[in-house]
Amino acid sequence: MTKDGAIGVFDSGIGGLTVLKELLTRLPGESFVYFGDTARVPYGTKSVETVLRFSRENVTFLLDQSVKFIVVACNTASASAVPRLQREFRIPILGVIEPGVRAAVERSRTSKIGVIGTAGTIRSGAYQNGIKQLDPQAEVMAKPCPLFVPLAEEGWVDTPVTELAARTYFDGFLDDGIDVLVLGCTHYPLLAGVIGRVVGDGVALVDSAVETASEVRRALERDDLLSEGAPGDFTIYLSDIAPDFQQVGERILERPIPDVRLRPV
Amino acid sequence: MTKDGAIGVFDSGIGGLTVLKELLTRLPGESFVYFGDTARVPYGTKSVETVLRFSRENVTFLLDQSVKFIVVACNTASASAVPRLQREFRIPILGVIEPGVRAAVERSRTSKIGVIGTAGTIRSGAYQNGIKQLDPQAEVMAKPCPLFVPLAEEGWVDTPVTELAARTYFDGFLDDGIDVLVLGCTHYPLLAGVIGRVVGDGVALVDSAVETASEVRRALERDDLLSEGAPGDFTIYLSDIAPDFQQVGERILERPIPDVRLRPV
Repeated sequence: MTKDGAIGVFDSGIGGLTVLKELLTRLPGESFVYFGDTARVPYGTKSVETVLRFSRENVTFLLDQSVKFIVVACNTASASAVPRLQREFRIPILGVIEPGVRAAVERSRTSKIGVIGTAGTIRSGAYQNGIKQLDPQAEVMAKPCPLFVPLAEEGWVDTPVTELAARTYFDGFLDDGIDVLVLGCTHYPLLAGVIGRVVGDGVALVDSAVETASEVRRALERDDLLSEGAPGDFTIYLSDIAPDFQQVGERILERPIPDVRLRPV
Repeated sequence: MTKDGAIGVFDSGIGGLTVLKELLTRLPGESFVYFGDTARVPYGTKSVETVLRFSRENVTFLLDQSVKFIVVACNTASASAVPRLQREFRIPILGVIEPGVRAAVERSRTSKIGVIGTAGTIRSGAYQNGIKQLDPQAEVMAKPCPLFVPLAEEGWVDTPVTELAARTYFDGFLDDGIDVLVLGCTHYPLLAGVIGRVVGDGVALVDSAVETASEVRRALERDDLLSEGAPGDFTIYLSDIAPDFQQVGERILERPIPDVRLRPV
C-alpha cells in the first residue's frame, strides 16, 4: 500500500454520505471514492448471505479504483460482513461498529447502553457483543427501528409522524435507565433532533459516522498511509441514479456534488 | 403457446403475493411461478432505467420456467416497463395499471379520481395518462405515499402512526371531491382499513390486484389458454430469503407456503 491511493467508502445507498462528510472534514489531504449501492438499497431488511455477497462485490469494485483503505459506512454491512471481508481481503477494512462500540462504552457512566438500528444490524448482535466484550458488566438494550430510514428519506426529519414513531419504538425501551444511545444506522443522525427529544437530555447520542472518521485518521497515521498533499476530492459512484439524488445527496453531504457516475450492478 | 405452461408473476418483492392470492382464487386450474426480487426491493424509489433492466431480467427468468403468460404484479414495474416489455417479448404480458385504470373509470360518477402509489409510479404518469385516455373529462389527483410500503412491512397496518401518516399525505388531497381512489401499489390494500377511514365512506377504493386477476382470466379465455385441469399449485422464487419471510408471506397470501426457492440476482 502507498499513501497515494484514495480511500474507498461503500454504503447500501446514500446514507453513508454522512460518513464521507466527516471523513472530508477530518482528512483534508485525502481523496475519496464513494460507492452507494442504490439499485439494491436497503440492506437492513435482507439476509446475512445476501448482504455479504453484495459487500464482496462492493469491495472488489473499490479495489479496481486502486484504493488504499476501505471504510464500510453501512451499519448492516459492517455488522454482517466486515469480519469476513477482513479475513478475505488484504486491504485494511474498517466498519462503523467498532468505533461506535468504543465511544459508547467510553461515554457511559451507568454501563446501561441502548442501541438502535435496522433489523439486520440488531439481529446480528454485533453492537451488543462488541459492547459486552469491552465492558462485561454492560447491559445492552437493543431495538430495531426500520421506519427511521424511510422517514429520513421522505424528508420527514422532524414531523409529528416521526415523533410518534419514535415514541412507539422507545415505549418501554427507556425504562431501564440507559445513559447512552448508539445511532446504529447512517440515516439516524438525520433524525437526531426528534430522537434526542424523545429519549431526553440524560441520554447521550453516539453517532458512528463521527467516531469512524476519527478512527480512520488514527489507523492511517499508525500505518503511515496518511496523505498530506493537495486538498482532497471525492468521486461518487451509484448503482442507480434516482431523479432526486442531487438534491438529497447535497443535503446530506452539505457540499455541492459536481458529478455522479453510474456503475450498474 | 399451449395451455400447459404455468402463469408467471413477478414483483419487486413480496407485496405481489396479494396478486397471486387473487389469481389462485379466480384461476383454480392453473399453476403459478412467482418471482419476488427481494434482494433489490423496493423498485418504487429507483430510476426508470434500473426498473426496466431488472424487469427484463425477471421476464427472462420466468421464460426459463416455460410460462405461458406473465403478470407484472409490481405497480412501479407496470408503470415504467410493461409497454417496453410487451414490444420486446412475444409472450403475453399484463401489468396492473390497465385493469386498475379501467375499474377506476367504470366506478367513478364524478370523473374525479385519486391515485396513490410509489414515487416511481406517480412520476411515470401511467395511471394519470391511462385514466385520461379512457375518460378525457377526468380530473386525476395523484400523490406519492412512499411510507405506506415500509409501514405495511413493519406490520403497522392499523396504528396511530399509520393513521397520522395517511392524514398527512391526504391533507389537501381530498378537497377536490374525488369519489374513487386507486391503491396503486401492491402493499396498499394491506392498509385499506386506515386509508378508507381517512378518505371517508364516499370514496370507493380500487384494488388493482383484484382487477388484474379478473383481467388475466378474461385474457386467457380469449386466447384459449385457460387450463381447466388439476387443482393449481404455485412455486415461489425469491432473490433474497429474509428470516421472517415465511411468516410475512403467509400473512399476505393467506395460505401456507410449503417451500421457497432462492434465485440470486
